[in-house]
Amino acid sequence: MATVTSPVADVCRAAKRASRTLAQLQTAIKDEALETIAASLQTRVDEILTANDSDMRAAREAELAEALLDRLRLDEARVAAIADAVRNIAALADPVGEVISGQRLANGLDVRRVRVPLGVVAVIYEARPNVTIDATALCLKSGNSIVLRGSSSAVHSNHALAHIASEAAVASGLPDGCVTLIAGGGHEELAELATQNDSIDLIIPRGGEALKDALAAVATVPVMYAASGNCHVYVDATAPLAQAEAIVINAKTQRPGVCNAAETLLIHRDIAPQFIPRILSALAAAGVLVRADERTLALAARRDELGAQGTAGARGLQLEAASEEDWATEYLNMTLAVRVVDSLAEAIEHIERYGSGHSEAIVTRDTLAARAFQLGVDAACVYVNASTRFTDGGEFGMGAEIGNSTQKLHARGPIGLRELCTSKYLVEGDGHVRL
Amino acid sequence: MATVTSPVADVCRAAKRASRTLAQLQTAIKDEALETIAASLQTRVDEILTANDSDMRAAREAELAEALLDRLRLDEARVAAIADAVRNIAALADPVGEVISGQRLANGLDVRRVRVPLGVVAVIYEARPNVTIDATALCLKSGNSIVLRGSSSAVHSNHALAHIASEAAVASGLPDGCVTLIAGGGHEELAELATQNDSIDLIIPRGGEALKDALAAVATVPVMYAASGNCHVYVDATAPLAQAEAIVINAKTQRPGVCNAAETLLIHRDIAPQFIPRILSALAAAGVLVRADERTLALAARRDELGAQGTAGARGLQLEAASEEDWATEYLNMTLAVRVVDSLAEAIEHIERYGSGHSEAIVTRDTLAARAFQLGVDAACVYVNASTRFTDGGEFGMGAEIGNSTQKLHARGPIGLRELCTSKYLVEGDGHVRL
Repeated sequence: MATVTSPVADVCRAAKRASRTLAQLQTAIKDEALETIAASLQTRVDEILTANDSDMRAAREAELAEALLDRLRLDEARVAAIADAVRNIAALADPVGEVISGQRLANGLDVRRVRVPLGVVAVIYEARPNVTIDATALCLKSGNSIVLRGSSSAVHSNHALAHIASEAAVASGLPDGCVTLIAGGGHEELAELATQNDSIDLIIPRGGEALKDALAAVATVPVMYAASGNCHVYVDATAPLAQAEAIVINAKTQRPGVCNAAETLLIHRDIAPQFIPRILSALAAAGVLVRADERTLALAARRDELGAQGTAGARGLQLEAASEEDWATEYLNMTLAVRVVDSLAEAIEHIERYGSGHSEAIVTRDTLAARAFQLGVDAACVYVNASTRFTDGGEFGMGAEIGNSTQKLHARGPIGLRELCTSKYLVEGDGHVRL
Repeated sequence: MATVTSPVADVCRAAKRASRTLAQLQTAIKDEALETIAASLQTRVDEILTANDSDMRAAREAELAEALLDRLRLDEARVAAIADAVRNIAALADPVGEVISGQRLANGLDVRRVRVPLGVVAVIYEARPNVTIDATALCLKSGNSIVLRGSSSAVHSNHALAHIASEAAVASGLPDGCVTLIAGGGHEELAELATQNDSIDLIIPRGGEALKDALAAVATVPVMYAASGNCHVYVDATAPLAQAEAIVINAKTQRPGVCNAAETLLIHRDIAPQFIPRILSALAAAGVLVRADERTLALAARRDELGAQGTAGARGLQLEAASEEDWATEYLNMTLAVRVVDSLAEAIEHIERYGSGHSEAIVTRDTLAARAFQLGVDAACVYVNASTRFTDGGEFGMGAEIGNSTQKLHARGPIGLRELCTSKYLVEGDGHVRL
């Protein structure tokens, strides 16, 4: 029963019951279940594609945008990629049982703090059906039951995927109820799910601001919001020009639609006269629209007087004056705000004011500037001489991730297997009483 | 300006500004500030006691209960103890800058996860004025600004203490605004404080259920609730009787009014005939009222037939039949619920159903039972052959604590200096871009 129509509270209670067994399972059994899920996805690919066809037909009838259709679409290669992702998660180290710290107290008591599963994680997501399996694999590997609630547009695909995963998991010895997709996507169901404090330990929403706002209005269960990212690259006075250019272009253009892409470029005034003509040419060549402050516009004008350099001029520079709103905007497209600052301190102040605390980078050769930036910038990830695009559980060696957190409590940065866990203290004595 | 009447939002913004400086201060400067606070409290003790006299007079006029008067009362010895607590916190290791984990990635990027302050912590507390200083010292040591909101009954004492702490801190080089007590205790002010998401990073309430409910209804800032504790001691079939008795008596009576005191005793049926007469005598001698299930009552009756053993009988056993409600009650006094269970599994089920996830203990000589209890009980602290009374930041070697958490996110168990911190990833490269 991967998809159920029984009351949400019943689903959550069953997930809680399953979580007690799941928390104590050996790693080998969990890994075997993940391998079985991966194999089942590939042997039952026709079932998945048939279900996906239904969703695609409905989506075309509803005239969804092409980008949304592409997010929804599955084919044999994509299903194989989903299965491979499950195998990769199976290969990761089990976070459960890891000793985080430990000591023998002065009175002889042995205290260990060990990692244990949270219990039941609810994942609420939009569109992409692959999240059904990614999130399931991460939760099962970390010993948690999962309750899934996808969007109505992917209901058949999600059902097929969750059904196969649930059957494979139970066939491998995992407890009934450890994977459930909630059918129906009404607001009452969201509210009911978000208030199951006795059985749900954490809700992770993966979707737009509307979903976050809807949840924030009703949730009493703890929620870990995946982040939006208004990320900056700051090019310091001592930055080597070629390296600064490479990092800016990478941070902006390598994948502009994701949260760790750069949205604003800050440039120290001492290097601006040399760097701005160069970076504007490179941004023009890459097809980036630039929204610039007055000082940048002035230096751009000088560049035009001198004649655009290299091949960049050929594509023409899209340059507009920035407004206050630009500094606060997460474009998620090929637009970059550019501003000249008087000092490192002003760069840090700008980031403090407009940044979302996700990923911030400095390019510099000055050790003091690097240190001041690391200390002064309050963000999940602070980079020295590297692109912001590395903020990613996979890149950081955490294996897969279920999102990125910009909140300060529990998880900050990539949310991987460890972040899906809590801890408990195990204390052992031989009759110890407190004096 | 330790106590201010300016709008709550202004206070919080000032605290945020101060937190940016505070986060980067060297340990030595923070420690010196704490030493200065401790010294000032003692040199300015008359000021504190005069303020406390005002509160005590008002409290007597309001006919507060003697227990509350005692919580409110300060004298020279108590102020000296408060100062000593500050010195103890100064002597603890600085959590800020601690490297939690780190590695060089395959591409050569160096990634470190380091501990950093949360920013601004708001502490909302009732009665006891010493919390003003304890909480301040913990927040400053961990690099956080603190916004305090005490109860109206201790307003003069709290003001004097916060004023002295703030003056001493600023005189030692800490930034203005790092310690502030909000004057006035109205519900509008609580709601305003609890919604300052831009400047307050965490709220810690220290008070009764009414305070928690009031906060839960309005807070949008993250709140870490200090725990209530419905703690159990389970005496397994193989428990040595003398040790089990010592642990039960300690867990119940050593300080019955605190959250880590035991509230229910569970006894395996195989050991019940020997253990129950013995423990009832010991509980009677200690003056504990027992609320027992039927099987315990039956064994108690047999004890009476045999004649009460030892000196215990002299004081007489207070024994009543337990109702369903007793299993769910945190008595916080000299009452203990007692129940016989058929098995270890039944004990774990009982704890799962009624426990608050605080501190749970098993007394056993069976390694398999100990392991099953550790794995199966979902609580912040799980004890084998030791009293639940050890759940305490001081006992666990964390130095002081600001409370105990039974929630699973961020902090579980004692909330010490590390739990008042978050982390950030520092990533260093030499021009790294993502491919």
